[in-house]
Amino acid sequence: MLRIGIFGATGYTGLELVRLLQNHRQARLVFAHSESNPGAKLSDIIPCLYDVPLIKADDAPLADVDVVFSCLPHAASAELAARVLAAGKKVVDLSADFRLTNAAVYEKTYKHVHPHPELLTRAVYGLPERYRERIAQTDLVANPGCYPTSTILPALPLLEAGALAEPVLIADSKSGVSGAGRKPSTTTHFVEVNEGLTPYNVANVHRHVPEIDQVLNDIDNGRTPGGVNVIFTPHLLPISRGMLTTLYVRLTPEARQTDWQSVFEKRYANEPFVRVLPRGQTASIAHVARTNMAAISLHPLGGAVADRLLLVCAIDNLTKGASGQALQNMNLMFGLDEREGLR
Amino acid sequence: MLRIGIFGATGYTGLELVRLLQNHRQARLVFAHSESNPGAKLSDIIPCLYDVPLIKADDAPLADVDVVFSCLPHAASAELAARVLAAGKKVVDLSADFRLTNAAVYEKTYKHVHPHPELLTRAVYGLPERYRERIAQTDLVANPGCYPTSTILPALPLLEAGALAEPVLIADSKSGVSGAGRKPSTTTHFVEVNEGLTPYNVANVHRHVPEIDQVLNDIDNGRTPGGVNVIFTPHLLPISRGMLTTLYVRLTPEARQTDWQSVFEKRYANEPFVRVLPRGQTASIAHVARTNMAAISLHPLGGAVADRLLLVCAIDNLTKGASGQALQNMNLMFGLDEREGLR
Amino acid sequence: MLRIGIFGATGYTGLELVRLLQNHRQARLVFAHSESNPGAKLSDIIPCLYDVPLIKADDAPLADVDVVFSCLPHAASAELAARVLAAGKKVVDLSADFRLTNAAVYEKTYKHVHPHPELLTRAVYGLPERYRERIAQTDLVANPGCYPTSTILPALPLLEAGALAEPVLIADSKSGVSGAGRKPSTTTHFVEVNEGLTPYNVANVHRHVPEIDQVLNDIDNGRTPGGVNVIFTPHLLPISRGMLTTLYVRLTPEARQTDWQSVFEKRYANEPFVRVLPRGQTASIAHVARTNMAAISLHPLGGAVADRLLLVCAIDNLTKGASGQALQNMNLMFGLDEREGLR
Amino acid sequence: MLRIGIFGATGYTGLELVRLLQNHRQARLVFAHSESNPGAKLSDIIPCLYDVPLIKADDAPLADVDVVFSCLPHAASAELAARVLAAGKKVVDLSADFRLTNAAVYEKTYKHVHPHPELLTRAVYGLPERYRERIAQTDLVANPGCYPTSTILPALPLLEAGALAEPVLIADSKSGVSGAGRKPSTTTHFVEVNEGLTPYNVANVHRHVPEIDQVLNDIDNGRTPGGVNVIFTPHLLPISRGMLTTLYVRLTPEARQTDWQSVFEKRYANEPFVRVLPRGQTASIAHVARTNMAAISLHPLGGAVADRLLLVCAIDNLTKGASGQALQNMNLMFGLDEREGLR
Repeated sequence: MLRIGIFGATGYTGLELVRLLQNHRQARLVFAHSESNPGAKLSDIIPCLYDVPLIKADDAPLADVDVVFSCLPHAASAELAARVLAAGKKVVDLSADFRLTNAAVYEKTYKHVHPHPELLTRAVYGLPERYRERIAQTDLVANPGCYPTSTILPALPLLEAGALAEPVLIADSKSGVSGAGRKPSTTTHFVEVNEGLTPYNVANVHRHVPEIDQVLNDIDNGRTPGGVNVIFTPHLLPISRGMLTTLYVRLTPEARQTDWQSVFEKRYANEPFVRVLPRGQTASIAHVARTNMAAISLHPLGGAVADRLLLVCAIDNLTKGASGQALQNMNLMFGLDEREGLR
Repeated sequence: MLRIGIFGATGYTGLELVRLLQNHRQARLVFAHSESNPGAKLSDIIPCLYDVPLIKADDAPLADVDVVFSCLPHAASAELAARVLAAGKKVVDLSADFRLTNAAVYEKTYKHVHPHPELLTRAVYGLPERYRERIAQTDLVANPGCYPTSTILPALPLLEAGALAEPVLIADSKSGVSGAGRKPSTTTHFVEVNEGLTPYNVANVHRHVPEIDQVLNDIDNGRTPGGVNVIFTPHLLPISRGMLTTLYVRLTPEARQTDWQSVFEKRYANEPFVRVLPRGQTASIAHVARTNMAAISLHPLGGAVADRLLLVCAIDNLTKGASGQALQNMNLMFGLDEREGLR
Repeated sequence: MLRIGIFGATGYTGLELVRLLQNHRQARLVFAHSESNPGAKLSDIIPCLYDVPLIKADDAPLADVDVVFSCLPHAASAELAARVLAAGKKVVDLSADFRLTNAAVYEKTYKHVHPHPELLTRAVYGLPERYRERIAQTDLVANPGCYPTSTILPALPLLEAGALAEPVLIADSKSGVSGAGRKPSTTTHFVEVNEGLTPYNVANVHRHVPEIDQVLNDIDNGRTPGGVNVIFTPHLLPISRGMLTTLYVRLTPEARQTDWQSVFEKRYANEPFVRVLPRGQTASIAHVARTNMAAISLHPLGGAVADRLLLVCAIDNLTKGASGQALQNMNLMFGLDEREGLR
Repeated sequence: MLRIGIFGATGYTGLELVRLLQNHRQARLVFAHSESNPGAKLSDIIPCLYDVPLIKADDAPLADVDVVFSCLPHAASAELAARVLAAGKKVVDLSADFRLTNAAVYEKTYKHVHPHPELLTRAVYGLPERYRERIAQTDLVANPGCYPTSTILPALPLLEAGALAEPVLIADSKSGVSGAGRKPSTTTHFVEVNEGLTPYNVANVHRHVPEIDQVLNDIDNGRTPGGVNVIFTPHLLPISRGMLTTLYVRLTPEARQTDWQSVFEKRYANEPFVRVLPRGQTASIAHVARTNMAAISLHPLGGAVADRLLLVCAIDNLTKGASGQALQNMNLMFGLDEREGLR
C-alpha cells in the first residue's frame, strides 16, 4: 500500500488528486497540506466527501509517506521537492518548476531564479506516451502542463515521422476555467467569464510556449532544420473543466501520401489513455470530461489546401492535463498498473 | 437635458446605468466616478462602448449635474448623499443606506452606526408601483434592493386587500451572480458557481429581510395583528443576470373567493413595468432579462391546499432590481416620462 | 458475478447506469438495449468509453442475465417488467410504472390504463432509507423519482416523529436539465434554458405529486388527521445535473422543543448515502454532484416565525435521483454491499 | 416612417429583428409571419415584450410594406424574395440564397437547384464595410452569414493591400448556440452542449466556406495568383450568443514591415460598427455581446514566426452576424442613418 502526501491539497489539482485516490486500491492518503486552512478538514471545504485533516507544511510527516505530490505554486514547489528528495522520497511535481531543462529559459519565463537548477536534469518530463521508461526509473517527475499535453499528443506521431513541411505548428487551444486555479480574480469571476470567450496571452506570450517548444523539439530530434515552433493561442472557455486544441500543420510532399489515421492508430494502440477516434468522428470535450483520456481526431484537407492536416485533441485539463496524469506517473514510478485509480 | 453624475460607475449597477443612459434622450452623463481607476476611461474596462473618462470623488464637478446616482457601498453612500444634497442636487441612492427608516434596525443589520440618520425620514423608498407620488416630490430616493422588489411586487395587491390568513409569507428567491457585485471572491468564482445552486443566508439572516418586512408592513398598514413576516431564502443561480421569487401565502376564507388574477390585472393595469401574465402562463427569467419589466404569474392551488396561493415574480436584478428602477425613479423625480431610456 | 441487462441504455439514466457499472466489481453488463440504434455500439454515441453493442428488445438474451434495469418510458416499462419477471429474473424499474400503488391514481396521473395492475402490490418502493428490508426480499423494485427522493429524505424524520403542526409541506425544488430526458424539445434547447430559471408544472400538477404524497403518508402512517400534502413547485435550472429542494414545514409546539439536528444525525447515522451537514453548513448541489449522496441541512427559524423549520436537500438527479439509487437497490436485492459501484 | 414585414419572425434572427425594430425611430413593424403559429401573438412566445399578431404567408399584406426581411430557410427564402421583388418592394434576405453568385456552387453547397438564379446578379452582398455604395442602390441584399462576417472583416485590410505570402488563411471560429437556430435537435440539447466545446463540419465542409472564399477573392481581386483559400474550423460554444474568430495569416516580406495596427485603424476609422482595439487589448465576445459592433485586435508574432500575423474578431452572431447587419443594410437601402436602431 503506497503512502501518499499532497502539498497544496485545496486547489483544484489537489482536490482532484484526493478524489482520484479514493478509487486507488494500492495507495492511501496519509496527509493533505494546506497552509491557509490548518486545523480544518477537507470535508469543511468540500462537504460530503472526505474527512482528511489539513496540516501545515512544517507538520507534514514526510517519513510516513513514499511519494509526495506537489500542487504548490512554482518556486515554492521546487523548494519542497528538494526537501522531499533529500528525505529519500519520490516526488511528482505538478508545478512548472522542473519542466524546462534550461534554467535560463525558466528564469526568463517565470521571472525568478530557479531555486534548484541542479535538479533540472534529474527530473523526467511526465508524458508517459513518450517517456514511459524514464519515468519508471526516476524519483522526480515534472508533470506536464495541460496545454502542452493537449498540443504535444496530436503532434507526436507527425514529428516522430518528420512530416512537417514547415517548422510551424498552429495550436488554437481552449480551456475551462479550473485551469486558472482557485484563487479569486476578475478573470475568473462568474459574470466576467460566463457567456463569453476570451483569448489571452495571445502572440506566444503564454508560459507554456517554451515548454511546448522544448518537448516538440526533443521529439523532432533535429529532423527539422532550425527546430520547430508552435504558434499557441489560449482561449478561456465558460466551462469548469475540459480543454480542446485544434492543431494545424503543413505536410511535406511525401507525408501527404501517408495514411495518418493508420499511423496514429498504430502509434497509440497500446496507450491506455489515448484514443484515436475513428475516421469521421471529431474529438470533443464531452468525450473525455472527468476521465484521464485524450481523444484525438484527424482531419485531412483537400483541394487547394491538401498540403495541410488538421487535428483535434480533447482532454480534461484537471485529469489527463494535471492530476490524472500525475497519478499515472506515480503508478509508473512504483511499477503499478498504469491505469489503477483512473478507470 | 438632465445632467447626470454616477459614483461607483465600474461596478455592475454603475455600468448598467451607463448602458441605459446611452438610450435616454433627455439626459446625458457628465461624469463617472471610480476611485480605483482614475485616469482611465470606461472603454478601457468595457471596450467598444464608451469613452467617458473616470474621475476620483474629489474631482467630481457636482455643480455641473442635476442628479447623482450613488452605486457606492453602504456607509460611503450616505456620506456622499449628504454632500450632494447639501450642494442642492438630487440623489438616487442604490445602496441600502436610506431604505430602512429606523437607524437602530439599520445599525443591527449593517453593523455600523448610520452616518446620517437625520436623512432617513427625508428619503422615499423608490418603488414607483407604491410610492410614485412621493418619489416625484423628493430629492432623495432610496432605490429598493433586488430581492425586496421581486418579493414585494407579487405580495402588494394581497396586502392591500388584507388577504392573508396568517402573518407569514414564504419567499423562495433565486438570483443571478451579478447581484453579488463585481469584487472577486470564492463565492463568485466561476468554477464554484457553475453547474450548481447554492442557498445562502438561509433562515432569515439576509440583510434584505428587515427591508422586506418594513415595506410589507407599511403596505399592510396594521391590517394584520402583530404584523406580517417574510421567510426569505435566497439561492445563487449559475447565471449572470435575472431573479425569480416563488411566493407562498395562505389566504383568509373570504380571500379564497376572490379572483386574484383580475385583482392583479387591475392593480397593475397602468404600470408600465409590471406585467401580470395571462392565466396559464408562468413567469420566467427569460421573459424579463435585460428589461425593466417585472413579470408576475398567479397559481391558485386546489384540493387539500386550496387555502394557499402561489405566485411567481421574475425581474432582471440589474434593471428593475437596481439600475433600471433607479432611472425610472429619476424620471419621476424630474417629471419626465417614466419609461424614457427603459423601453 | 451478477449479470446485468439494461433496457433504454442510451438515455441519460441508461448511460449513467453503464458508467456506474464500469466500477462495480461484482457485476458485469451483458447487454444494453436501444431500439433506435440497433447495430451501433455505445462508443458510437459516447466515444472513448465503452464498446458494448446495442441490441433490439426482441434480441435481448433474458436467459443470460440475473437482473434487468428498465429505463424505458412508462407503460412500455411495465410491459417489459412483466416479461422479465415471467422469465424468473429480477427488475429494477426506473420508470414511474410501479411507484403508485393505486391503479386509478396511476391512470389519472399518467393518462393511460396501467398495463399490469396485478404487479403493483408486488413492487417495493426503492428508497433504502425507509424500505431497505423489503427491497432485499423483492424481485421488483420501483425506483423512486428524483424529485420525490429529494423531498422525502428531508421530511422523513419529521413525519416519523409526527412533528407537523399542519398537514402541508412546501417543497420548492430545482432540477438540472438531464432530468427532462435526452429527447430534443424546445424546453431543453440550450438557448431556451441557458441564463434562465423556469418554474413549470406549478400548482401541484407535476406527475411526481401523487408519488410524494403517497410515500409521505405511508411514512406518516395516519399520525396526521386527513393526511399530509405537499405543495410542490419544480423549477428548471440551467445546469446539466443536480437537484435541490428547499422544504418549509410548520412544527407542533412540542416539536419546536426538539433538537432536530440531533434527531436527523441519529436517524441517518448508518445511512451510507445520506449526510446530515453540521450545524451552520448549507446543502448545495456542488457537494453531491456525480455522487450518490444526499446532503441535508437543517435551518431552524427564530422570532415571529419560530414555529417553522426550513430544510435543504441536495442530490444528483441522475445518481441518487435515478441510476445510483437503482444500483443501490440492486445491491440490496442480491445481498451485496450496498455501496459497491457507488463510492 | 418605413413599413416593415418580417417572414420567419419566431426564429432567433426574426425575434432579434423585432427587438431591434422596437428602438428604430423611422420604421415600424407592419406584419410578422410565422407559418407554425398563425393566430398567436409574439407575446405568446416571448411574454412581456410585444403584441404583434403572427400571420401566415398567404395573408401577408405586401402592399402595406416598403421592405421585407426574410428569415426563412434557404430555397423558401428565394421564392419569397422573387414574389416580394415582383410586388415592387425591397428585400433583405437573411438566408444564404443570394450570397453565392454562382448557381452551380450554390447547388453543390445547398444540395438543390437554385429557384431563381436570374436574381443572383441582382443581389448585393450586404457587408457595408466593403459594399456600402452598391447596397444603397439595390433592392435585394444578401445578408452575410455570421461566420463570413467575423472572418472577412479582419482579413479585409490585408487582402486590399495584397499582404499574404501564401494563399491560405486559417480561421478558427467559435460560435454560440443561437447560430444553430431554434429548431430542437440533439446538437442543441442543453445537456449535450453545456460544459463542452465541439468542433463540427471540420476540414472545410461547412456551407460558409464557399461564401467566405468568394468574398475574400472578390476583395483580393486577383492579386494572389490562383486565389486565396480559407481553412475554416467552426466550434460550438456553450453560450447563447456571440462569435469569435481567430485568424492566422502569413505575410509577404514587405508586409512584415507594415504597421498593420495603423492600417486597420485608418481603414475602419469611419465605420460605425467596427472597432479596432488599441494595441495590447484582445477582442473578446463580452465586448460586443448584444451590440452590432465587430471588435478586431491585431497580434503580430515575433522570433521564428515573425512572418505570421494573428488577428481576433468578435461579433454577436445574432446582431452584426445577422439581424443587426440586416437592419444596417435596410438603413443604407433607404438613405437613413446607418446607425438608427442599432445604438
